[in-house]
Amino acid sequence: MKIAIDGMGGDNAPSAVIDGIIQAAKEYNEITFYITGPKEQIISELSKYDYPKDKVIIVDAKEIISTNEHPVMALRKKKDSSIVKALNLVKDGTCDAIISGGSTGAFLAGCTLIIGRVKGVERPALAPIMPGRRGNFMIVDVGANVDCKPEYLVQFGKMGKIYYKNVFNKENPTLGLINIGAEEEKGNELTKATFKLLKEDHSINFKGNVEPRDIPTGDTNVLISDGFVGNTALKMYEGSASNLLEMIKDEILKANIIPKIGIIFLKPLLKNIMKKFDYKEYGGAPFLGVNGICIKAHGSSDGKAFKNAIRQTKIFHEKGVLEDIKKEFSNQT
Amino acid sequence: MKIAIDGMGGDNAPSAVIDGIIQAAKEYNEITFYITGPKEQIISELSKYDYPKDKVIIVDAKEIISTNEHPVMALRKKKDSSIVKALNLVKDGTCDAIISGGSTGAFLAGCTLIIGRVKGVERPALAPIMPGRRGNFMIVDVGANVDCKPEYLVQFGKMGKIYYKNVFNKENPTLGLINIGAEEEKGNELTKATFKLLKEDHSINFKGNVEPRDIPTGDTNVLISDGFVGNTALKMYEGSASNLLEMIKDEILKANIIPKIGIIFLKPLLKNIMKKFDYKEYGGAPFLGVNGICIKAHGSSDGKAFKNAIRQTKIFHEKGVLEDIKKEFSNQT
Repeated sequence: MKIAIDGMGGDNAPSAVIDGIIQAAKEYNEITFYITGPKEQIISELSKYDYPKDKVIIVDAKEIISTNEHPVMALRKKKDSSIVKALNLVKDGTCDAIISGGSTGAFLAGCTLIIGRVKGVERPALAPIMPGRRGNFMIVDVGANVDCKPEYLVQFGKMGKIYYKNVFNKENPTLGLINIGAEEEKGNELTKATFKLLKEDHSINFKGNVEPRDIPTGDTNVLISDGFVGNTALKMYEGSASNLLEMIKDEILKANIIPKIGIIFLKPLLKNIMKKFDYKEYGGAPFLGVNGICIKAHGSSDGKAFKNAIRQTKIFHEKGVLEDIKKEFSNQT
Repeated sequence: MKIAIDGMGGDNAPSAVIDGIIQAAKEYNEITFYITGPKEQIISELSKYDYPKDKVIIVDAKEIISTNEHPVMALRKKKDSSIVKALNLVKDGTCDAIISGGSTGAFLAGCTLIIGRVKGVERPALAPIMPGRRGNFMIVDVGANVDCKPEYLVQFGKMGKIYYKNVFNKENPTLGLINIGAEEEKGNELTKATFKLLKEDHSINFKGNVEPRDIPTGDTNVLISDGFVGNTALKMYEGSASNLLEMIKDEILKANIIPKIGIIFLKPLLKNIMKKFDYKEYGGAPFLGVNGICIKAHGSSDGKAFKNAIRQTKIFHEKGVLEDIKKEFSNQT
């Protein structure tokens, strides 16, 4: 397998990217990495490691696209950027997949513009895996499509089903529509129309509406929503968890000696829980519906997070998720 | 002051409603309560208490509207329901305010249909107060309006500002627009158009977009959104907090003796934090923009929660929030 990696994508690039590649190269010897970025910088970073030289190929790219740039404009202007070069490696068939920890806007736009969509898919969707209390869940979409039609959401459900099924070895994963009420008639125009379409589709295991407060249990595997609502749910989930832990810390600082002793005893346990919320454990978010394997790594990824994104990319490839998505949508048209 | 209370509204009605009234009647002797519901049942419940008899007036109402009924249909059909009777007490001027812990849909529809809107307000909005890490925050709207126009959202901001300012004695509270990115150009069609309007309005202290993960800090006082997104953020906040605490409990159950000792030491501290998340402490959510003081109590309210909703109603009245909202919107038209 060949993976293109945007060497300059992410807050800690290129060092974290290269650290992740080296970790992965030692474990998965069937992967060849194509890392894009300024050649001298990449070589100098790589020289710190001992690694299988034939498994890491440097593709020179002088420009960098920042998160502040307009995604489409930047992609058009900066043909020699690390992200555009990496995308082209997938487009021309050199690589099977791309990973980037850079600007989400530029990455999503680049995947669609340069690699293109799977035939039949109207809008590709970003679909991270999240840790729930009783299992992992997936939200499709979390921000690639802020204004949606009901048909897009049905497609998000189908793609999410295929990904979840393959990656978690679960036949017929449960699907739910994020909505502000459990009953069919609840919601806004978009969710009401989407509910009807999902209910009529017997190729999916649609369980009905899921209220946001029930998302964190993980009882529903794939949660469908437009990108605005999905992003709100995702960020509120992350924000609430870290906020609550901060509130516990605040109380401990104010407290007397007895709770302070308590926290010493509890530390290993809280560590276990925080590990569940640690994006580094989960790799990246697949961008489903693109005609290539595209994984968005977290912007603040460290070496471990990049290594896990590589592992995730490998699973995506081995399980044939992209082929299954293509098959699903070719049947429809 | 005279408050109409839906005696049959809420999971624990009428006992919790009456418990709350009795607690409040003893503390605030300037309030007279008009409680609606089946006369015999209310009398029998009241007979358990010793209380100032002249402060509690029973208004007979035989019917009850459940959460499963279509709100508008139920309101039209059940003229003799506890909620319709209570609403009419405000409409005809007998009472200054209404509190209900019953069906949110029926309550919101009833406030608008029976009491009516403040002149100039396009859509009333439900606006609960939430506990943040560094202070309370308010989300307007959390579900009264699922499909919105930018102009509605600007009005939500103005009403939220007036409420927050009066209730928390804070001049010029900060306003933020819930959005999936901090930059002006981020978001969906609705937020982009709303941002422009808010930025141009110099009567408010608009601080820009607020990403959902930053809501729980409480750094922004009033958060503006359509009812669908606001409801998602609110329910995700509640759901995430309780989910995280459940995860901590799960880990403790699985753990050996040492973390178990830790939790004993920590208990008083966690109790303090849970108190912050306890809706009972906060009373209810005001329904802003209605031509009367309308407070929605939580469906599972106990006596203490109803008592706090009464305290909140009293503050709303004393501070002249409704008059300020009327003034604000009369200036605009």
